[in-house]
Amino acid sequence: MADATLGDRLLALVRELHPLCRSLTGDGVRETLAVLRRHAPLEVHEVPSGTRVFDWTIPDEWNVRDAWIADRAGRRVVDFRRSNLHVVGYSEPVDRRVGRDELLRHLHTLPEHPDWIPYRTSYYQRSWGFCASQRSVDAMQDDAYDVRIDARLEPGSLTYGELFLPGRTAEEILVTTHVCHPSLCNDNLSGIAVAALLAGELAGRPRRRGLRFLFIPGTLGSLTWLARNAGRLGAIRGGLTLTCLGDGSPFTFKRSFAGDSETDRAAALALRRSGHAHRIVDFPPWGYDERQFNAPGFRLPIGSLMRAQHGRFPEYHTSADDLGFVSAAHLAESQAVLGDLLHLLDGNARYRSLCSHGEPQLGRRGLYRAMGGDGDPEALQMAMLWVLQLADGEHDLIRMAERSGLGFEVLARAAGRLHEHGILAEESAAKEAVS
Amino acid sequence: MADATLGDRLLALVRELHPLCRSLTGDGVRETLAVLRRHAPLEVHEVPSGTRVFDWTIPDEWNVRDAWIADRAGRRVVDFRRSNLHVVGYSEPVDRRVGRDELLRHLHTLPEHPDWIPYRTSYYQRSWGFCASQRSVDAMQDDAYDVRIDARLEPGSLTYGELFLPGRTAEEILVTTHVCHPSLCNDNLSGIAVAALLAGELAGRPRRRGLRFLFIPGTLGSLTWLARNAGRLGAIRGGLTLTCLGDGSPFTFKRSFAGDSETDRAAALALRRSGHAHRIVDFPPWGYDERQFNAPGFRLPIGSLMRAQHGRFPEYHTSADDLGFVSAAHLAESQAVLGDLLHLLDGNARYRSLCSHGEPQLGRRGLYRAMGGDGDPEALQMAMLWVLQLADGEHDLIRMAERSGLGFEVLARAAGRLHEHGILAEESAAKEAVS
Amino acid sequence: MADATLGDRLLALVRELHPLCRSLTGDGVRETLAVLRRHAPLEVHEVPSGTRVFDWTIPDEWNVRDAWIADRAGRRVVDFRRSNLHVVGYSEPVDRRVGRDELLRHLHTLPEHPDWIPYRTSYYQRSWGFCASQRSVDAMQDDAYDVRIDARLEPGSLTYGELFLPGRTAEEILVTTHVCHPSLCNDNLSGIAVAALLAGELAGRPRRRGLRFLFIPGTLGSLTWLARNAGRLGAIRGGLTLTCLGDGSPFTFKRSFAGDSETDRAAALALRRSGHAHRIVDFPPWGYDERQFNAPGFRLPIGSLMRAQHGRFPEYHTSADDLGFVSAAHLAESQAVLGDLLHLLDGNARYRSLCSHGEPQLGRRGLYRAMGGDGDPEALQMAMLWVLQLADGEHDLIRMAERSGLGFEVLARAAGRLHEHGILAEESAAKEAVS
Repeated sequence: MADATLGDRLLALVRELHPLCRSLTGDGVRETLAVLRRHAPLEVHEVPSGTRVFDWTIPDEWNVRDAWIADRAGRRVVDFRRSNLHVVGYSEPVDRRVGRDELLRHLHTLPEHPDWIPYRTSYYQRSWGFCASQRSVDAMQDDAYDVRIDARLEPGSLTYGELFLPGRTAEEILVTTHVCHPSLCNDNLSGIAVAALLAGELAGRPRRRGLRFLFIPGTLGSLTWLARNAGRLGAIRGGLTLTCLGDGSPFTFKRSFAGDSETDRAAALALRRSGHAHRIVDFPPWGYDERQFNAPGFRLPIGSLMRAQHGRFPEYHTSADDLGFVSAAHLAESQAVLGDLLHLLDGNARYRSLCSHGEPQLGRRGLYRAMGGDGDPEALQMAMLWVLQLADGEHDLIRMAERSGLGFEVLARAAGRLHEHGILAEESAAKEAVS
Repeated sequence: MADATLGDRLLALVRELHPLCRSLTGDGVRETLAVLRRHAPLEVHEVPSGTRVFDWTIPDEWNVRDAWIADRAGRRVVDFRRSNLHVVGYSEPVDRRVGRDELLRHLHTLPEHPDWIPYRTSYYQRSWGFCASQRSVDAMQDDAYDVRIDARLEPGSLTYGELFLPGRTAEEILVTTHVCHPSLCNDNLSGIAVAALLAGELAGRPRRRGLRFLFIPGTLGSLTWLARNAGRLGAIRGGLTLTCLGDGSPFTFKRSFAGDSETDRAAALALRRSGHAHRIVDFPPWGYDERQFNAPGFRLPIGSLMRAQHGRFPEYHTSADDLGFVSAAHLAESQAVLGDLLHLLDGNARYRSLCSHGEPQLGRRGLYRAMGGDGDPEALQMAMLWVLQLADGEHDLIRMAERSGLGFEVLARAAGRLHEHGILAEESAAKEAVS
Repeated sequence: MADATLGDRLLALVRELHPLCRSLTGDGVRETLAVLRRHAPLEVHEVPSGTRVFDWTIPDEWNVRDAWIADRAGRRVVDFRRSNLHVVGYSEPVDRRVGRDELLRHLHTLPEHPDWIPYRTSYYQRSWGFCASQRSVDAMQDDAYDVRIDARLEPGSLTYGELFLPGRTAEEILVTTHVCHPSLCNDNLSGIAVAALLAGELAGRPRRRGLRFLFIPGTLGSLTWLARNAGRLGAIRGGLTLTCLGDGSPFTFKRSFAGDSETDRAAALALRRSGHAHRIVDFPPWGYDERQFNAPGFRLPIGSLMRAQHGRFPEYHTSADDLGFVSAAHLAESQAVLGDLLHLLDGNARYRSLCSHGEPQLGRRGLYRAMGGDGDPEALQMAMLWVLQLADGEHDLIRMAERSGLGFEVLARAAGRLHEHGILAEESAAKEAVS
């Protein structure tokens, strides 16, 4: 049973962020990050327009104050104030009267869903445009309309948020979610809310591996972060992009390019033990920022956690991805699964036996069939024998679980007991080794 | 639908070559190569008797002018002029009267197919012999017969043909077929005709990888070529031996020893997309020259393309493997499959992204959803993303097709577009690097 | 059909060894080894108490002369002379009157099998105790009892037996069986008897690989041997622990940790070709000394051959594992399977072709279709071609059998013929290379 209070808090955060007009750049992202800072101590980065990022350049910043289409009677038939989806992202300013035919060439609709407004952007090819429901466009029968997009496209910066929670070792896990979509709930206020509240919850806790959260515009945002953090990438052992975590579909995990990385195995285990319906799909080279992290020049083993899969549900990138499309219960369920997945990744140590020439004498240390009051003694005993046999520095705890058929937790407890007794050493990169 | 004209030309060539008495050495091979030179610009090599070739020595050259068995009435009951199969290959000269019992010890028949003449040779163990139908032998009831084999076994040479079609890179694909069998159509005039006409067709075309055709006596011929070309073997990336390509059986592809080489994957793809019935079998250490190329000291990944499998059909190595056993349509079908297989092997490049840190900005180059008139834009778009993701210098295009589920051609087109825009470099060994 | 005489001899040896009171140390082991020396020329080693062995220390030696519990009438209600299982192994001496309640805390029974005596030891935690049938304990209704364990726990030594049968190469196969259990027949007089008679049988024969037999107390015995033979471990190519070889269950082979070692493949082949029912199970980190040999610091590929699996049958470690639980026929069957397995491991050479550039000219050497009187010529011919193709120094004969589908013996015969003709060299480590 998911945590009802948590679900309510997640949904409240989605609701609060919903009206903001996010885009690749601009104040909508800044305002979003300001709200998130109330939940988790993010650092906010600004990277100036014109900065080269690998094959790309950070564009001018885009901000829109108002936008509308008015008929001859002066009535706003399409109005940015009612929904920020009405303006094509990165539209140039426009302020003139246009004939109906010309206007139609700048209007995007979804004929198959006549009441929905589509979400469209044109970041790199400068133009202007509006999105509207087919029904409202059908009603526009005047010869000409006044169109106004009160937008600025000027040198500014790309904005992203980052929170690093240090761990005991130099290894890192990355959790990243895109913040460039306007009033769309599942994609991606759900990912933003889950990441922010979980970051806040985990901030005060000890951990083995550093945990880095990114709240970042899609594609260019992740490329920017990658370009600015080249020296840190070697520490990243796994991670996830988050999106579409509030709808009612079964979970979807999209594997990393490697396909059998720690992240992939941890996700399979977390989903299996969650008991929730789920499917696991191979990495395709589209989707969100996982495609950047997994590119040939990086090959970071970053998978993607979703419920409905991006691009595969009708409400995707339309006004129907609204507050009614996500629920408190599903958001909370997603956060629980993510939390467990990160718990597995954090605890998934490899060990080397310091007593590897045969078995150590467990009896002398009180570790042999002398374990009343410590859970199921038989299972813990078996787990100790498995851990000792597999403590060759190559098997991580998830691999041990796969090979032994035992649970991750009992193996982790066994490894912990053996570690306390000086029988095992952890193989993780030492903090000192990297920093 | 196979090319009917091509089929007719293939069958005409088989018909023309049929009467020649080919063997391990001798004028039959020379005359065969002379005919082939009208179709493809082969070079003819002569290697003297006595030359050491690894564990072997090139034997004396064998030529036979006439041979017969005559009864007491002087009637030729077995006559080389009716079929060159009647003489055991490499028979020593003989010219004397022998008793019926002694003669029978030198006669080979196929009792289970009483009208067929078997094909027999005895290259390395000197003797003489005749092959005849069981029915004709049953009719031989005289006490003694005059036998004559007017053959020469003298120092001469082993003859083979070779055609090298250079490519843009230093890599090579090898196509080899044996020319040592006398009047047998499927094994191997079919292989010879298909190789020769395809070589002629491809001679004028540009290609990525060099293409080397060998028309060569079995076993000793390929060993001779291997011994004389030791320095070139490193350039060979794959290839095929050809035999039995004119009968009506489904195709058979015999894998290389490696089993998962480029050749093996290209053959599987070519056969799959041909739509023809086929089977793929693991490498056994018998058959034709693939056993030499795949030997432990070479391990060249050479597979074998056939229809009926050598040794597995009753007509194999008998007079029933005649002009009626092969057809124009099947020969043409085989050439089409071989042509496509070589097309795949030629185009099967590996690429390295020059923009490997995330995705390149395709939009700026007009490569992003701006591809009207260039086939299916969606498929080409997806293919570009797959190629970019897999352009790590290790995935060849066939592997990309296997992983993405997309077709080879659309991936090749996508790679070509990205290459034109300077985003990809080809990983093939540069021409300069080897020569 | 198993050898009836062999079965009788095995059972006679089990019967002779049955009364001796074996333990981790002490005269029972010495007397056992003395009996075995009549069958195989074992060397006996004594390692003093107090010797450090990795994480362990060899304890004081334990010997017991007599032990009993007597009721108030002086009647021995539990008597070591009737069964040495009655005394908990490594019990401290005791000689006093105890109240019934205190006595019960030192008494072990099997309530679910009221007529059976359990087998218990407490090697490392000093205490005293008795084992008895539930029925006899239920009958003990006196208020107090006299208990006496006339045992000595004094510095002495750990005793084990070892027999090394040298081979032609420096490689070794290890066969080890535990000798620390008292009057239990299947576990492990069956293993001891089979190992001893087979060692005696093989002692006089030539072999390729050295064969080392250990008769050794469980856990500490194998650790002791490992510690004293660190320099020899590199020569060990495979081997087995033996236990539970006299009962009527199907055979069980427990794989080595590696899971695909020569031992694992030889065992699968030996069991398959034995025709006996069997199961093969993955390595778990419990059982007998295979867990020490396979530990991370050694990773020696030692599997385990059994019939019923240790710990998985009700009679295990009880007085019901008696002379009636094992049979002559099953013991003999086990020895036959073990003999064949060792035969496979001994003969499982890897070869390198000295004629690897294509095929050698077999005809010139009389090896090509000239093999009358040498078994099935076709199979031997095919086996030669397979061996030549796979003679790359990496494929051992079992791998050749797996890949070719041919039998091990015909491949071995083919390899032998090719070796005689100087075409193959064996890849085994030369004797000289190691010693």
